[in-house]
Amino acid sequence: MNQTTTTRRHVRSIAELGSSRLTRLLDLATHMEAINQRPVPKVAALRGRVVCNLFFEDSTRTRLSFDTAAKRLGADTIAFTGSGSSISKGESLRDTVETLAAMRLDAIVVRHRSAGVPWQIAQWCDAAIVNAGDGRHAHPTQALLDVYTIGRHTGRGADLSGLRVAIVGDIVNSRVARSTTTAMQMLGATVMHIGPATLLDDLSGVERSADLDAVIGDVDVLYMLRMQNERIDGFPVPRGGEYTRRFGLTPERARMLRPDGLVMHPGPINHGVEMTVDPSTLPQSVIAEQVTNGVAIRMAVLFDLLGTGDMEEES
Amino acid sequence: MNQTTTTRRHVRSIAELGSSRLTRLLDLATHMEAINQRPVPKVAALRGRVVCNLFFEDSTRTRLSFDTAAKRLGADTIAFTGSGSSISKGESLRDTVETLAAMRLDAIVVRHRSAGVPWQIAQWCDAAIVNAGDGRHAHPTQALLDVYTIGRHTGRGADLSGLRVAIVGDIVNSRVARSTTTAMQMLGATVMHIGPATLLDDLSGVERSADLDAVIGDVDVLYMLRMQNERIDGFPVPRGGEYTRRFGLTPERARMLRPDGLVMHPGPINHGVEMTVDPSTLPQSVIAEQVTNGVAIRMAVLFDLLGTGDMEEES
Amino acid sequence: MNQTTTTRRHVRSIAELGSSRLTRLLDLATHMEAINQRPVPKVAALRGRVVCNLFFEDSTRTRLSFDTAAKRLGADTIAFTGSGSSISKGESLRDTVETLAAMRLDAIVVRHRSAGVPWQIAQWCDAAIVNAGDGRHAHPTQALLDVYTIGRHTGRGADLSGLRVAIVGDIVNSRVARSTTTAMQMLGATVMHIGPATLLDDLSGVERSADLDAVIGDVDVLYMLRMQNERIDGFPVPRGGEYTRRFGLTPERARMLRPDGLVMHPGPINHGVEMTVDPSTLPQSVIAEQVTNGVAIRMAVLFDLLGTGDMEEES
Repeated sequence: MNQTTTTRRHVRSIAELGSSRLTRLLDLATHMEAINQRPVPKVAALRGRVVCNLFFEDSTRTRLSFDTAAKRLGADTIAFTGSGSSISKGESLRDTVETLAAMRLDAIVVRHRSAGVPWQIAQWCDAAIVNAGDGRHAHPTQALLDVYTIGRHTGRGADLSGLRVAIVGDIVNSRVARSTTTAMQMLGATVMHIGPATLLDDLSGVERSADLDAVIGDVDVLYMLRMQNERIDGFPVPRGGEYTRRFGLTPERARMLRPDGLVMHPGPINHGVEMTVDPSTLPQSVIAEQVTNGVAIRMAVLFDLLGTGDMEEES
Repeated sequence: MNQTTTTRRHVRSIAELGSSRLTRLLDLATHMEAINQRPVPKVAALRGRVVCNLFFEDSTRTRLSFDTAAKRLGADTIAFTGSGSSISKGESLRDTVETLAAMRLDAIVVRHRSAGVPWQIAQWCDAAIVNAGDGRHAHPTQALLDVYTIGRHTGRGADLSGLRVAIVGDIVNSRVARSTTTAMQMLGATVMHIGPATLLDDLSGVERSADLDAVIGDVDVLYMLRMQNERIDGFPVPRGGEYTRRFGLTPERARMLRPDGLVMHPGPINHGVEMTVDPSTLPQSVIAEQVTNGVAIRMAVLFDLLGTGDMEEES
Repeated sequence: MNQTTTTRRHVRSIAELGSSRLTRLLDLATHMEAINQRPVPKVAALRGRVVCNLFFEDSTRTRLSFDTAAKRLGADTIAFTGSGSSISKGESLRDTVETLAAMRLDAIVVRHRSAGVPWQIAQWCDAAIVNAGDGRHAHPTQALLDVYTIGRHTGRGADLSGLRVAIVGDIVNSRVARSTTTAMQMLGATVMHIGPATLLDDLSGVERSADLDAVIGDVDVLYMLRMQNERIDGFPVPRGGEYTRRFGLTPERARMLRPDGLVMHPGPINHGVEMTVDPSTLPQSVIAEQVTNGVAIRMAVLFDLLGTGDMEEES
C-alpha cells in the first residue's frame, strides 16, 4: 500500500479514491460476488467490527444494501436515523459524530442532504467514513456498482476504454451523475450528458446535448437518471409529458437501442416520467443487476476499509 | 415432498398451505420450542440467510416475534418500514420488492393494509414470502400459533377433532378470524362465530350466532377478537358498553366458562371492551402462551422455507 | 452472592444496587474495557440471549451504547420504539411488556418519561430490567460510567474518598444528577450541587450553593449538567445569557480550573448555554471518555444480569 493513511481510510468520492484504488475495489467486489453465490454467503472477515448507518435522508436500497453487506462480512450494524434520536433534542451533527466516535465504532456510512458532510465528519472522529450520498455532490458506491456492472456485463472488467455512455436527465442535481461520470471516465469510457439545458452541468471532458434521439442508437450504455422532483423546484424545466417526450425512454426509443447496449438507472424509477417502458421487459436492462452488484461493492468497500484478516474465514 | 415448488416457497394463507404442510409446520414447531428451552437457545440453521421484515402497518408482537425467530435460527434480519424509506420518494411497492429481490434476500415477511399483497409480491421476486397480515384477508402465522397452542395445551397435537371453538367479535374485519377458523377446521375442530350480525361473515361450515351466553358454558375454546376500532368506521355496531354487555368477557361470563376450557386472544387486548377481566387472573387464559408459541411457530415457518442444513447445528 | 434474586436481576437505581454490587460492576467494566481493546472486540458470553431496547424517549448515545454493548457480548438485540408499534393502536405499556416477556426476552432496557416505569415493568415480566432513564428519577448506567471514568482517570478505582465534586446546573430536573450523586457518595466522594435556587434539590449529604466561582478552583471534578430546556417550562430560572454568566463553563472559568481537575458532562451539550468552551480544547475534559466507558459499563451490566458462561469465550 503506497496510499496515505488519510485516503486509505475513507470512501468519500471517486476523485479522491483515484484509479488504482477504484480498480482494487472492483477486483475485491468480484471476490465478494463469489462469496454471495455460496450456499452460506457469510464470512467472518469483519467479526467484531461495528458499522453505523447514519442516514439523515430517506433511503431504501442504499441503507439496506450497506446493512446486508456488513452482515454478510460478519460485522455488527447499528442504525441512527434523524428521527428517534437526540437530533430532536437539538444535538448537533458534530456532537452526534463525536459520540459515535467515542463508542469506538469502526465505520460510519453517512447520507446527508448537505454536500461535504463526509469530509466534515472525518475531522471529528477516527472512524472510516463511507459517503452514501451527500447533497448534490457525490455517491461513490453507486458509481462503483455502475462501472462494476458495465465491466462485468461486457466482460471488460475495469477497462471501459472506447465505450460510449449517455447519461440522460437531471444532471445538475444528481450526485449519481457526478460520481458515475468520473468513475466511467477514469476507466476509459467516453461520457455524454443529455438533458434540458437548464439541467446540464459543466463537468470536464463531457459532451453535452439536448438531442437524445441523435445518439440513442449509437451508445454502448444508456444511463437514465431519476427526475428528482423533490430537489428540482425553481428550475425552469420541461415537466411531465414534455420531459418524457424529449428525454424519456419510451417504447419507440427502446426500439432504437443497440441490441448489445445496456440500459441503467440508479433507482428508484419514476415510472411514466423518465421511463415509460417496463425495464423487466427490456432485454438491454441491467437495472436489477445494478442492485445485486451493489451488495458486493459495499462488501468490497467495507472490507477494504476495515478488513485485517482473511476474507475467506468462515463465520 | 410432493408439493409444488410454488406453494413450498411461501406461507401466505392457511388454505394455500393445505393440511399436510400445516401439520408439518406444527411438528417443526415442537422442535423449535425445544430449542428455545435450551440454555443457549440459538442454532446456526439459517446462517447466511437474510430475512427482511417489510411492515407497512404498525406492529409490536408480530414484527418482534419474527425478528426474534430469525435470530434464534442464526439468520440476519433487515428492517424496512413505511417511514424512513424511499416510499416517501414515491417509490412503488413493486420497485421496493424488486430492489429487495435483487439484493438476494432470502425471505420477505410482509404486513400490508391491502389484501393480496403477499401474492403480488411473490410475482416480483424469488424470495420466500411470509404473510404477516394482509388487510382483512389472512394472518396465517397467527392461525398456526393458535392451533399449536390448543394442540399443545390439550395434549391433542394436530388432531383437534371434536373440539368446539367459539370466536367472538368483529369477524368480518378480522384476518385473524378468517385464518384461524380455516386452520381449526382443517384439524377437525367445529368453529362458531359469535357477534353482532353486522360483524359476522359467511365462511363455509361455520355456525353463526349473536348469543354468547347460550354457548359460553359449552365450548372448549373461547377465542375473543380485538375490537378493531381503527377499521370499523361505517359499520353500524353496538359500541362501548353495549358491545361489552352483549359480547365482552366480563367477570360474570368468566364464571360460566368450563374449568378446562381455554380463553384465547390474538392481542393487543382492548381492555374494558372485549375483555373486562384481567387475563392474568383467569386460569383458562392461554393468551401469554400464544405469544410464547408464536416465536416457535415463526421459527418453524422460516426453517421450513429457508432451511437446508441441520436444525441442530450449533451457532 | 448474598443478594436476593430480586435485586440481582435488575439495574434500576444506584441506591437499589448498593455499594458491593456497584463495586462489582466497576470491576467487571475493567474486564470489558480490555475486551474492547482487543483486535476482535467480541465475545460469545451472551450468545443466545435477546436484549430488547424499549425506548419511549428519544436517545442517541444511550440506545446505541446499549446496542453496541449487547452485540460485543454476542447477544441479539431487538428494538422497540414508541413509533412504528402497536402503541399507536392504543396498546398499553403493560400489554407491551407482557408480550415481550412472553417471547422470553432476557433483558429489557427501558427509557420512559415517567419515573418508576422500570419497577412497574419488573412486576409484569421475568426479564432483567435495566433502567436507561425514567423521568426525572434515575439513570444508573450514566452514574456507573461517571464514577468509572473518575476512578479510572485518577487511578483511584472504586475508592473516591476525599474527592470533591461539584455538579452544576438543573439538578431538580436531572435524573443524571440524582443517580451520579448517589454513586459518588457511595464511593466516598463529597458532592456539592451548584445552580439557581429554583433548580436545586434536597438530596441528603449534599452541600448546595449558587456560587460557582467560589469553588471552581478547588474541586477535583466539575460535572456540568445539560440545561433540559424541554423539561424546564414553568420553572422561574435565569435564561440564556444570564444562566451562562452565572453557571456556564466560560473561557474565564476554564482558566480557574485546577490543572489536574476533571470536567464532565453527560451529553448532549447545549453549546453556548452551560458550556461556551469547546470541550475538545479543554485538557481537563473527560467527556469523550465518558462515552467510551459507557459501552464497557453497559457490557458489565448486561453480563452481570445475563451472563452464565465464560466472559472470555470467543464468538
